[in-house]
Amino acid sequence: MKTTAVIMAGGRGERFWPKSRNSCPKQFLSLTSDGETMIQKTVKRLMPLVDIEDVYVVTNAAYKDLVLDQLNDIPEENILAEPCARNTAPCIAFAAAVISRKYDDATMLVLPSDHLIGYEDIYVNTLKKAIGVAQEGKNLVTIGITPTYPETGYGYINFGQESGAAYEVKRFVEKPDLPTAKEYLSSGKYLWNSGMFVWKVSSVMADLREFMPDIYEGALRIGEAFGTPGFTETLVKEFTAFRSESIDFGIMEKASDIFTIPGSFGWDDVGSWLAVERINETDDDKNYTEGDVITVDSKRTTICGGKRLVAAIGTRDIIIVDTDDVLLVCSKNNTQDVKKVIAKLKEEGRSELV
Amino acid sequence: MKTTAVIMAGGRGERFWPKSRNSCPKQFLSLTSDGETMIQKTVKRLMPLVDIEDVYVVTNAAYKDLVLDQLNDIPEENILAEPCARNTAPCIAFAAAVISRKYDDATMLVLPSDHLIGYEDIYVNTLKKAIGVAQEGKNLVTIGITPTYPETGYGYINFGQESGAAYEVKRFVEKPDLPTAKEYLSSGKYLWNSGMFVWKVSSVMADLREFMPDIYEGALRIGEAFGTPGFTETLVKEFTAFRSESIDFGIMEKASDIFTIPGSFGWDDVGSWLAVERINETDDDKNYTEGDVITVDSKRTTICGGKRLVAAIGTRDIIIVDTDDVLLVCSKNNTQDVKKVIAKLKEEGRSELV
Repeated sequence: MKTTAVIMAGGRGERFWPKSRNSCPKQFLSLTSDGETMIQKTVKRLMPLVDIEDVYVVTNAAYKDLVLDQLNDIPEENILAEPCARNTAPCIAFAAAVISRKYDDATMLVLPSDHLIGYEDIYVNTLKKAIGVAQEGKNLVTIGITPTYPETGYGYINFGQESGAAYEVKRFVEKPDLPTAKEYLSSGKYLWNSGMFVWKVSSVMADLREFMPDIYEGALRIGEAFGTPGFTETLVKEFTAFRSESIDFGIMEKASDIFTIPGSFGWDDVGSWLAVERINETDDDKNYTEGDVITVDSKRTTICGGKRLVAAIGTRDIIIVDTDDVLLVCSKNNTQDVKKVIAKLKEEGRSELV
Repeated sequence: MKTTAVIMAGGRGERFWPKSRNSCPKQFLSLTSDGETMIQKTVKRLMPLVDIEDVYVVTNAAYKDLVLDQLNDIPEENILAEPCARNTAPCIAFAAAVISRKYDDATMLVLPSDHLIGYEDIYVNTLKKAIGVAQEGKNLVTIGITPTYPETGYGYINFGQESGAAYEVKRFVEKPDLPTAKEYLSSGKYLWNSGMFVWKVSSVMADLREFMPDIYEGALRIGEAFGTPGFTETLVKEFTAFRSESIDFGIMEKASDIFTIPGSFGWDDVGSWLAVERINETDDDKNYTEGDVITVDSKRTTICGGKRLVAAIGTRDIIIVDTDDVLLVCSKNNTQDVKKVIAKLKEEGRSELV
């Protein structure tokens, strides 16, 4: 059975503002010193598993040119341009319906476009195992990450019995508070929900039909129109009519026959500016600097310079991001509050800075 | 007797980098919201005491145009352009010699160009008293500032007996360490040396002759050439030959008949970026911001914005200064280390940023 990959690349990456903008979100940025963008890395590391013509990118129509530009090996028709944002369930249904047109059935990897993987060989082997499990039956397989600390920003997967290469999933749980996250961690029975899924197209379509029949029907009509002159019209009509729903809430929390494979491949969701010091090398004082930077007595400072000299003196636990039109200086305790600045700018109608 | 004023405006203001540059030092910047530059304020507050044609500005030749531009009421010949920096003794000798050419004798106020005064009426009255004391005899009068905390960055004046409107000076002392500064403060017998002096030209010339005869002779030759075609040649020859010396070390610490008048007029030497929050209004969280700035949960943060948006999130006790080609982010504990950055830039030959 053919293996296909669906890269979800419609996100806004607000937490990486001001580098990530409406016009160029996080997945199209490089946050590592090698200059490769997140989405380029995502596709590259799949190459041992998937033919390039079987890689699909679902993104907002506004980013189609960015995808074409950064991933010029991918067939243009594989770039699935959403007319609006409707969260992951419609996104995945759209891709599944399109792949159904090409192959009777196929294995489908569903992957975020803006995460990093430290150990790519292990990652590929883990996905191979997941492909095997998905192909055995009507299974939905999710990759769970073994937690290393009680993170409160992720959803968790509670797993049960071992079953072949995987574990049965008992339930998905939302982001916990800190005491609950600590319990999860010490129980040894919870994994982080990484948002990476593996299944047969036929499996996910069956579950869509059962749990989200409206979206299933719409996706079918989009799939039927794919490759015909009326495609864009149908897509806009059907997709804009979809409600916004996550695949986790829409299917994973309801379906049976769900398995998880624990992944230990140096996963990083690059979820905020704090990630930069994790995914890059720092100096002896734990500073990370890029660009034209002078530091004097600075420690644990992350500096992403722009076109100008940045001089940081005596700084501690702070993130400095310099761009042409915006400068961000953010305490490491407040990286989530970047969204508040964006909200304020939207409120003030300053969309050119968002 | 005529009252003249000599404004010393040759400093580099390194501690206000990156706003203060070789090409435009601190005294030519506005650090207050009214937009007036430091030197403009210095001259303006003297107007109740001195005619504008009796105001002299001693500055580096490189800044002559800046002075002309910012102080366009001052006669051009009153701008005394030093060909090189030689500290305050040669600067004052130069001005005294020039004033000697115009008036047989005159009272001479010697004032820094880059300090701020909160209570200008009290300041003017204090200087009036000082003028009176200076005219009584061969007196050198210095304005001492009543200390409010044990500052280790200033020289101190140890005073003794009251004598009319002033106090006899027992000695000048260099910048103390903290325990010594605390002793000075608790003794009630020490004032901060503000670098403001009042004397008759004849008095300071007599002391120059006694304690710095080489500089006295050179200054006399400069004074004789003033207003003649050979002036610039003489000035360059004599001035470059001067050794670098402060008036404190060269005269004040050696001469007798020295008096101090305690000043309580809201003096601020604007000695580092820390001054900005002192001399301007701050918000409820003790932030000072100027320019296009958004703060979220920031406290005690000083932000001097430039042309771009500055977003500060969760910052504490930090100073952010944005200019076209340099961004400074500096802990309030490290404001003196700005000089280290300048030293590094000089070392690297990056003079355009200094």
